Amino acid sequence: MIRVGIVGGTGYTGVELVRLLLRHGQVELALITSRGNVGMRVDGMFPNLRGACELSFSEPDVRALAECDVVFFATPNGTAMQMAPDLLAGGARVIDLAADFRLKDPAVWERWYGMPHRCPELLAEAVYGLPELNGPALRDARLVANPGCYPTAVTLGFLPLLEQGLADPTSLIADAKSGVSGAGRSAQLGTLLCEVSESFKAYAVPGHRHWPEIHQTLNGVAGSNEVGLTFVPHLVPMIRGIHATLYARVLDPEMDLSEVYGRRYADSPFVDPMPAGAHPETRSVRGTNLCRIAVHRPAVSEQAVILSVIDNLVKGAAGQAIQNMNLMFGYDEVEGLLDVAVLP
Amino acid sequence: MIRVGIVGGTGYTGVELVRLLLRHGQVELALITSRGNVGMRVDGMFPNLRGACELSFSEPDVRALAECDVVFFATPNGTAMQMAPDLLAGGARVIDLAADFRLKDPAVWERWYGMPHRCPELLAEAVYGLPELNGPALRDARLVANPGCYPTAVTLGFLPLLEQGLADPTSLIADAKSGVSGAGRSAQLGTLLCEVSESFKAYAVPGHRHWPEIHQTLNGVAGSNEVGLTFVPHLVPMIRGIHATLYARVLDPEMDLSEVYGRRYADSPFVDPMPAGAHPETRSVRGTNLCRIAVHRPAVSEQAVILSVIDNLVKGAAGQAIQNMNLMFGYDEVEGLLDVAVLP
Amino acid sequence: MIRVGIVGGTGYTGVELVRLLLRHGQVELALITSRGNVGMRVDGMFPNLRGACELSFSEPDVRALAECDVVFFATPNGTAMQMAPDLLAGGARVIDLAADFRLKDPAVWERWYGMPHRCPELLAEAVYGLPELNGPALRDARLVANPGCYPTAVTLGFLPLLEQGLADPTSLIADAKSGVSGAGRSAQLGTLLCEVSESFKAYAVPGHRHWPEIHQTLNGVAGSNEVGLTFVPHLVPMIRGIHATLYARVLDPEMDLSEVYGRRYADSPFVDPMPAGAHPETRSVRGTNLCRIAVHRPAVSEQAVILSVIDNLVKGAAGQAIQNMNLMFGYDEVEGLLDVAVLP
Amino acid sequence: MIRVGIVGGTGYTGVELVRLLLRHGQVELALITSRGNVGMRVDGMFPNLRGACELSFSEPDVRALAECDVVFFATPNGTAMQMAPDLLAGGARVIDLAADFRLKDPAVWERWYGMPHRCPELLAEAVYGLPELNGPALRDARLVANPGCYPTAVTLGFLPLLEQGLADPTSLIADAKSGVSGAGRSAQLGTLLCEVSESFKAYAVPGHRHWPEIHQTLNGVAGSNEVGLTFVPHLVPMIRGIHATLYARVLDPEMDLSEVYGRRYADSPFVDPMPAGAHPETRSVRGTNLCRIAVHRPAVSEQAVILSVIDNLVKGAAGQAIQNMNLMFGYDEVEGLLDVAVLP
Repeated sequence: MIRVGIVGGTGYTGVELVRLLLRHGQVELALITSRGNVGMRVDGMFPNLRGACELSFSEPDVRALAECDVVFFATPNGTAMQMAPDLLAGGARVIDLAADFRLKDPAVWERWYGMPHRCPELLAEAVYGLPELNGPALRDARLVANPGCYPTAVTLGFLPLLEQGLADPTSLIADAKSGVSGAGRSAQLGTLLCEVSESFKAYAVPGHRHWPEIHQTLNGVAGSNEVGLTFVPHLVPMIRGIHATLYARVLDPEMDLSEVYGRRYADSPFVDPMPAGAHPETRSVRGTNLCRIAVHRPAVSEQAVILSVIDNLVKGAAGQAIQNMNLMFGYDEVEGLLDVAVLP
Repeated sequence: MIRVGIVGGTGYTGVELVRLLLRHGQVELALITSRGNVGMRVDGMFPNLRGACELSFSEPDVRALAECDVVFFATPNGTAMQMAPDLLAGGARVIDLAADFRLKDPAVWERWYGMPHRCPELLAEAVYGLPELNGPALRDARLVANPGCYPTAVTLGFLPLLEQGLADPTSLIADAKSGVSGAGRSAQLGTLLCEVSESFKAYAVPGHRHWPEIHQTLNGVAGSNEVGLTFVPHLVPMIRGIHATLYARVLDPEMDLSEVYGRRYADSPFVDPMPAGAHPETRSVRGTNLCRIAVHRPAVSEQAVILSVIDNLVKGAAGQAIQNMNLMFGYDEVEGLLDVAVLP
Repeated sequence: MIRVGIVGGTGYTGVELVRLLLRHGQVELALITSRGNVGMRVDGMFPNLRGACELSFSEPDVRALAECDVVFFATPNGTAMQMAPDLLAGGARVIDLAADFRLKDPAVWERWYGMPHRCPELLAEAVYGLPELNGPALRDARLVANPGCYPTAVTLGFLPLLEQGLADPTSLIADAKSGVSGAGRSAQLGTLLCEVSESFKAYAVPGHRHWPEIHQTLNGVAGSNEVGLTFVPHLVPMIRGIHATLYARVLDPEMDLSEVYGRRYADSPFVDPMPAGAHPETRSVRGTNLCRIAVHRPAVSEQAVILSVIDNLVKGAAGQAIQNMNLMFGYDEVEGLLDVAVLP
Repeated sequence: MIRVGIVGGTGYTGVELVRLLLRHGQVELALITSRGNVGMRVDGMFPNLRGACELSFSEPDVRALAECDVVFFATPNGTAMQMAPDLLAGGARVIDLAADFRLKDPAVWERWYGMPHRCPELLAEAVYGLPELNGPALRDARLVANPGCYPTAVTLGFLPLLEQGLADPTSLIADAKSGVSGAGRSAQLGTLLCEVSESFKAYAVPGHRHWPEIHQTLNGVAGSNEVGLTFVPHLVPMIRGIHATLYARVLDPEMDLSEVYGRRYADSPFVDPMPAGAHPETRSVRGTNLCRIAVHRPAVSEQAVILSVIDNLVKGAAGQAIQNMNLMFGYDEVEGLLDVAVLP
């Protein structure tokens, strides 16, 4: 039994962490902070928690947090890097669901996030929390950079091809689509139901912060610096789910890619390599920590088409964070995460 | 550990039964039938079950079903009444999620459902499976008539007032709204996304089959035959959820109704009497077996307004059926049903 | 050809006014103001207007506005009452789409809207802009109080019964449902897609500002002060549309109500009394100025059930405002308003 | 004034043709056929037409149809090719909204549509009805093959690049997303609200019938047979709209593509080349005949990214058919088609 704290529990990743941690047999959810809502009951903000959670939001106090075994940051970018050094020094381990520790180069961080990094000395130690890639390193990690939602779906989709040198790394395309919850729980005109319902659009085509993150990981996987990636995100009129449609030039036209993916993910409990010809639906993973992947080779195309779906708030955020926690503390990797999606 | 069978597992209540039974610690899901899909894997039809359920649909065979301890019917109306006698004779207990055993008077059944009843002799024995009303009788029941979705939300909302004679039973109004899954999983023009999305309408205002069911129960509760009920159902452009807005003339204008409801449901694990002034949202119970109820007395009105929300497929169908099963077999009433709604 | 100005064109009623006025053959849309967006092109805010509208937002200047023949206020409550006296003095006529001139009693205004009225002397002159009720008075009106969205749907539904003394006025119930655009175009947590999509709830059950407005009109229609009205609004997960489900005790059980409604609205081009047994859908009036009404007398009920649907932004706001303008300036009542709803 | 007939008016393109033709100043909608609904009023099927259309469905009779100046086929694939020869012989002109006359090679037709072509002799004469490409030929056309919805959005997006040899034609990618109305108005499990709402998926990745259509047109435009096209369609949980995200390797990295598109479409009233950096939304063209296009050159990519949006039922079907009719009969190209999208 470990003590867990959550910093910044008022967003959608925060409530999702609470929901999942409440069903985890090995943790005590000790505190959840929100500077702006101290004293308010958590279930007063999130009505789904009535009857399941008695906590109230507390002040984000380093001393109290340091008494936890692990602290999750479900905060805006730039917050975790201010508190992480003290928490680590105090003996707690840290999992940041924001972007603070994802980019290894502080100059790249500053360029894309518009602020200097406060503790660049921790960047080397931070483990990028994609268990299917960094499982062993995560078991000993003190500080985990939980991946972004798009990067999770895109990276898991390209991984087998690039690891094994099966595709041209210089001309990758990721056409990604996300539900609106990816934009977070804050009062913004752009995510009102009346603005995004019954419509579809691309956004941030000139450049999105998840591009350098995906680019860095794929370069690492390909073992080179030659990855060329075009990344275009879109907004889908639904609450949850990411669908990444990935295009890659596969070198061997005879290669059985379904077999490649099946083998690569045979031991990954949360990646489901689907049979050839499948079209995964985001609803099939809603509320769960699964990533389902199908590979296609259209007859009329030289491109392989990889379809990768996740729930952006679970495998793309809170669920993956708990999967990382499970690895860090030696629990079963799937503990607390074996939900079946509610369908329809 | 009991053996469970499902007859007719291809609808939305069927997949919901499977999802919930898979997480129940005391049951073995032995078989699931579908005459039209024999041999097809269940997870081939319902992609959320990939990795969680290895079963395939089988022929609905009475002998095989009778070897189960309990058989759920998730079939169209008129099916369970054909097989129930043989199953009961064979030693299985039966929970019908359709309407076959809900109405005590076979003449009323025939009028509203348009077919003669095949085993009227079982109607007296069948227990109406609303645990908050008939809990003790359910513990010994061989045959349970699981309530309809609207009747569950409406009856739980009126129950405290009528049991205690606090409202005029002759002028009740139930303005009820349901998500589209209430119409079932069959290829119908009227429930295409393009027909019901971005629109709202009432339906069946001249008469809906759930009226006699609610009317029968409320008459029983009021201990009289004088219940007057106007019931108007509406279709909401969403998948799940029922919101019943109930109007009743309360006799004592000073009565503290929140206290009445709180006391009535103090021992009901799945009814959440909310504090005065609350407005329950259907999403707060999505995927769960909860019914949340709030009571209002608008200053400008002589009517009490009761707001009652459920998930039509869980507390309004599959979840309540499992709650009934728990009572019938002496399990903890909440076993397998303690989900927290996924929000957002 | 008249010159038209819009004050406060950045909300949903504003863009709807622009869309409808652009197709009106008798008006020149001269200016549209927005204090916070001076100089910004209107089609930069509303992408549907690209290619159709060359205007930019200007400062709300009384002198420039007074040169218009008519000025629409599509502003928050409390704005029109500050500028209306000067505009009227300057010779412009005024149509307020907010609530400033709807309530005849300034004390009632202050109680429900939380601010003193700035020009109570104009309240007697202001004509309540429901053409089906006040058509003749509107032809000479200088100042029009455009009705609220709920009041339009509810009042048109009860009107024939109360005018002709056919129903008990003391026990009316209006269970009303609105799309989310009724909450306006401002960055609020409560109307994010992730908060209201896939959910349904009532709100403001203790008291809603449209209650005194409906109450005042119905009292006037009934010719008494004895109207008793319970009004419960709900939020529907869709963009546009209001569905009012109305309950009234009709005195004569034999009365043919469809005939009554058909006769009452025979000369009203924007009210469609549907045949008996119909269930109007909000999508059938989306984007149009129509109110469709169907009347039911369920066999099992003493209540008549009236179903009334409108588009809250058209007949419930901008369209009705233009209908009023047509009457005020002697144009054909339907000019610019003869759209057919886009379906699906 | 010309007489117009519609064959097969019970689908979504049928009702859209009716809505648009009713507002066209130069046509009389003479008859609308539906074999299965003879005698039923059209507004009994489509409630938006109440008060606007008095027609009833009639038998599809060649003689009656041949008396029209133009006949639209809003039928399933394979119907128009059975009646077109007789209608043309009888003096009517024909616009087919299905696929019968889109593919020039009957062998390709048979391969993709699974049936032999009934009048291959007409394929050479049929004009592919994309006015921005074939405007002059359409003025004299007797027989028009109205383009598919995806082909319209994709072709207009690639056109300027391929016509002018600015991009590598061998590696084009079209990642396209459509609202559910593209699947038509028939009772299918796969397009129920409960199956497609709150979810996103690709479909037909191995091969979609619109691929050969796009391929044929782009080959013609490029003046070669070397077009290589990967086409992946997706289903968006909304009613209307197509968003095509197009990827092309542009040869000159300095080329100002916005200028190229602006010039190419300067005289096309229904194509809106948006300013650099824009992200068109499908809602901005909903219910209208517009195609809005924005071009991006992400700094980190060698690919140009073209975003192209249309309403699949208007510019992708009924609106484009009327645009073609306008050209064929010498009317103003925009007659009856100058709607502004309803927003929100």
